[in-house]
Amino acid sequence: MNEPAKKKLLQMIPHALYILTAEANGHHAASTISWMTQASFKPPLIVLGVRADSFTFDILKQSSNFVLNYLGADQKDIAQKFFKHVEPVDNTLAGEPFVHSPLHKLPVFPHMAGYLECTVVDIVEHGDHAVVVAEVLEAELSQANGLLLLSTTGWSYGG
Amino acid sequence: MNEPAKKKLLQMIPHALYILTAEANGHHAASTISWMTQASFKPPLIVLGVRADSFTFDILKQSSNFVLNYLGADQKDIAQKFFKHVEPVDNTLAGEPFVHSPLHKLPVFPHMAGYLECTVVDIVEHGDHAVVVAEVLEAELSQANGLLLLSTTGWSYGG
Repeated sequence: MNEPAKKKLLQMIPHALYILTAEANGHHAASTISWMTQASFKPPLIVLGVRADSFTFDILKQSSNFVLNYLGADQKDIAQKFFKHVEPVDNTLAGEPFVHSPLHKLPVFPHMAGYLECTVVDIVEHGDHAVVVAEVLEAELSQANGLLLLSTTGWSYGG
Repeated sequence: MNEPAKKKLLQMIPHALYILTAEANGHHAASTISWMTQASFKPPLIVLGVRADSFTFDILKQSSNFVLNYLGADQKDIAQKFFKHVEPVDNTLAGEPFVHSPLHKLPVFPHMAGYLECTVVDIVEHGDHAVVVAEVLEAELSQANGLLLLSTTGWSYGG
């Protein structure tokens, strides 16, 4: 394998950044996610790569439901807050105020670009990240002035 | 469901464009693909959404191996040639000359940005597109002057 070419080509895949929120047994997950694609029109499916050894993936497996909050182009500082585990304080996570999603009452950040409320339909556990296939059940758009793209952050996640 | 918000948010996911090539029983697949993400570092996995009723997906299921050719930023005209089924003529597909990949002798276009040679490790058939989980086995980078992003083509695929 040409490792440098593999690394570069995987890093060239465009990705945006999102905050995934979920809850199970009184614990919350709220994590920055970048590996995501659409995967079907009917039903509307998305696919995420979620670190298999993470607290977030544990919660996700138990809850089967999650919200994917889209970060706006100028919200890199918020993305950075969700690299580590946080639990809610009053109605905030890492200082960011949230409301509750319509279906499963999961944290939604109204000051981000919008969100998808999803339910897990399948999980493939084969690598260091699990492939989570999920159906979109509800959605809300807050602002549409562009997403936070991984390529603009100076961070690297991929390769 | 807020359908307009769902549509818009799915269309906001950044995607590039690739030509997937595969071969089985003397037939070739060569199709433009946009739904793709990385999904693991070790092993290096990617996930694709491939139309479940397509000739390409039939071939992919039979061959289990494929090449993902990355389109360069200025190769929209090439992307357009692979919306419909084509079979090779001499060593060209839709007029584009190809060579053979190192492992499975599948079509590689050396004038594109690079390619990943992959093997299918799992398939989830749940929607109008199949979720194809694949391991990257080989890679080659030809040029690194940017990828053809769906958002720059004026085309829409998602929502």
